Amino acid sequence: MTKFSVLILGNASAAPTLTRNNTSQLVNVNEQYFLIDCGEGTQTKLRENKIKLQRLNHIFISHLHGDHYFGLMGLIQTMNLLGKTTPLYIYCPSNIEEIINVHFKFSESAIKFPIFYQHVNCEESEIIFENEKVVVSSIPLTHRIPCAGYIFTEKPKPRKINSIAIEQYEVPKHQIYKLKLGEDYVAADGKIIKNKLLTDDSSPSFSYAFCSDTKYEEKIIDIIKDVTLLYHEATFSEEHSDRAKKTFHSTAIQAAIIANKSNAKKLIIGHFSNRYPDLNILLEEAKTIFGNTEIAIQGKEFNIAEV
Amino acid sequence: MTKFSVLILGNASAAPTLTRNNTSQLVNVNEQYFLIDCGEGTQTKLRENKIKLQRLNHIFISHLHGDHYFGLMGLIQTMNLLGKTTPLYIYCPSNIEEIINVHFKFSESAIKFPIFYQHVNCEESEIIFENEKVVVSSIPLTHRIPCAGYIFTEKPKPRKINSIAIEQYEVPKHQIYKLKLGEDYVAADGKIIKNKLLTDDSSPSFSYAFCSDTKYEEKIIDIIKDVTLLYHEATFSEEHSDRAKKTFHSTAIQAAIIANKSNAKKLIIGHFSNRYPDLNILLEEAKTIFGNTEIAIQGKEFNIAEV
Repeated sequence: MTKFSVLILGNASAAPTLTRNNTSQLVNVNEQYFLIDCGEGTQTKLRENKIKLQRLNHIFISHLHGDHYFGLMGLIQTMNLLGKTTPLYIYCPSNIEEIINVHFKFSESAIKFPIFYQHVNCEESEIIFENEKVVVSSIPLTHRIPCAGYIFTEKPKPRKINSIAIEQYEVPKHQIYKLKLGEDYVAADGKIIKNKLLTDDSSPSFSYAFCSDTKYEEKIIDIIKDVTLLYHEATFSEEHSDRAKKTFHSTAIQAAIIANKSNAKKLIIGHFSNRYPDLNILLEEAKTIFGNTEIAIQGKEFNIAEV
Repeated sequence: MTKFSVLILGNASAAPTLTRNNTSQLVNVNEQYFLIDCGEGTQTKLRENKIKLQRLNHIFISHLHGDHYFGLMGLIQTMNLLGKTTPLYIYCPSNIEEIINVHFKFSESAIKFPIFYQHVNCEESEIIFENEKVVVSSIPLTHRIPCAGYIFTEKPKPRKINSIAIEQYEVPKHQIYKLKLGEDYVAADGKIIKNKLLTDDSSPSFSYAFCSDTKYEEKIIDIIKDVTLLYHEATFSEEHSDRAKKTFHSTAIQAAIIANKSNAKKLIIGHFSNRYPDLNILLEEAKTIFGNTEIAIQGKEFNIAEV
């Protein structure tokens, strides 16, 4: 089965604490890595989790509040020291290039790999990355500054070849890729063998949506409709809903309402204010609305096929 | 006795590891804090050591290589979140203001306390800070980019009042500050009582020199002459002395030669390349030249009066 997981590297909003790092997550699709956000200390969390930095070529930044990207300069510098030569792609709604460049201007450090910056649309959802396994689209969020979420959607998987039937109908090997795509087999004598006789249904495709800092925003529901695993920020409890509103953040209940309305299979909540030493307050509130909710525990890997 | 100590917050060069943070040290002079360098993760190390960030008003940056300042943006942001209102003074040889400003431009975060930037001379030593207890001067270092060390020198301390003699000679209380400064006492009848009869020698004054990234550089010896505690970078062992030369760094032996020639009382070495899992190699090399050497162990506080 294709690997599709998300590893939580940090779940703190604003200031990091001794047990909670700032936001960062590592998505793994078929052993290709995608880093989402990069709070201070992310490179150390990657090391702790034995992630080889050299395998990291795509970084998605949600917005330019420091708790979401202050670790990026150090990560780039360490990649450079480790001898990275392959391109690094950085996706961001704002001009993060200006920030990166000013640092390396003063350090007079030659970055020995190319960095390509891609501007992310946060007005409407658009595809920002695509390969043979996955499509990544932006999710326009509503925060104090331009801010995007990201949804990773697996492409439809190939139908599964029934090897007994293949042998029985004497299908030549070079025809098999067509069967995987769902086509019927036309034998040498012109006889048509229906695809369904030769293949089994493909594995289902899953999706993961990362909804970074945002006020409660119903316009994202259509974009994340039927998502398998939804991460949604839940900075505050109901007690501090005024504060959530004022700072363009969400409460745990609001995250759960979004999960409910978008028909998510599972919800994970994160980006916790450090006023909550016990995160169960937030978890319990969310669960009153959406039962299948979990805390984005730092160091935990969620297998998206198994949620 | 006046507190005068240095707490090691990080001792790694270049990339941080799981056990070694990038360079940062906290100097405490009479319960006033001075932070030297601020590698990524410094705010977390300060928290670990229960240092109240709100008491920090002076930060000395040696140079603009990321391993010496990438933690500064996060530290400023957290101070802001904690409600700091008192001014922050940042001392640096390069225009770090440009870096800080570009971050907060994009985040649209209003920093609610004033930040004053002071340019540090790295061509010749000059006084950059002074209060009633201590003088801080720059130490011109020789690195790939402008780089300064810092020497903290306690001012001469007041002579100690001999309370028995004070009573015996009936010295009025308002004259005592003069005695502390070493003046003789002139009694009402014009009789002169020698200061030495009324006071004991003051406690000795100590000094701490922080020599950040530098190639072996004898011109610093005069500036740090007779220093009590010398921190000198020792990125490499003798085996990699070519690498030290090429990268404008020092070996442990070179650090020890500087300690020897400057007549330091004690040497601590740090800024270790992460190619050395066992730092005793570096320590043993340094000790062949300068016996009273120690590793700048992360989390260790050195009491400068007691070295």
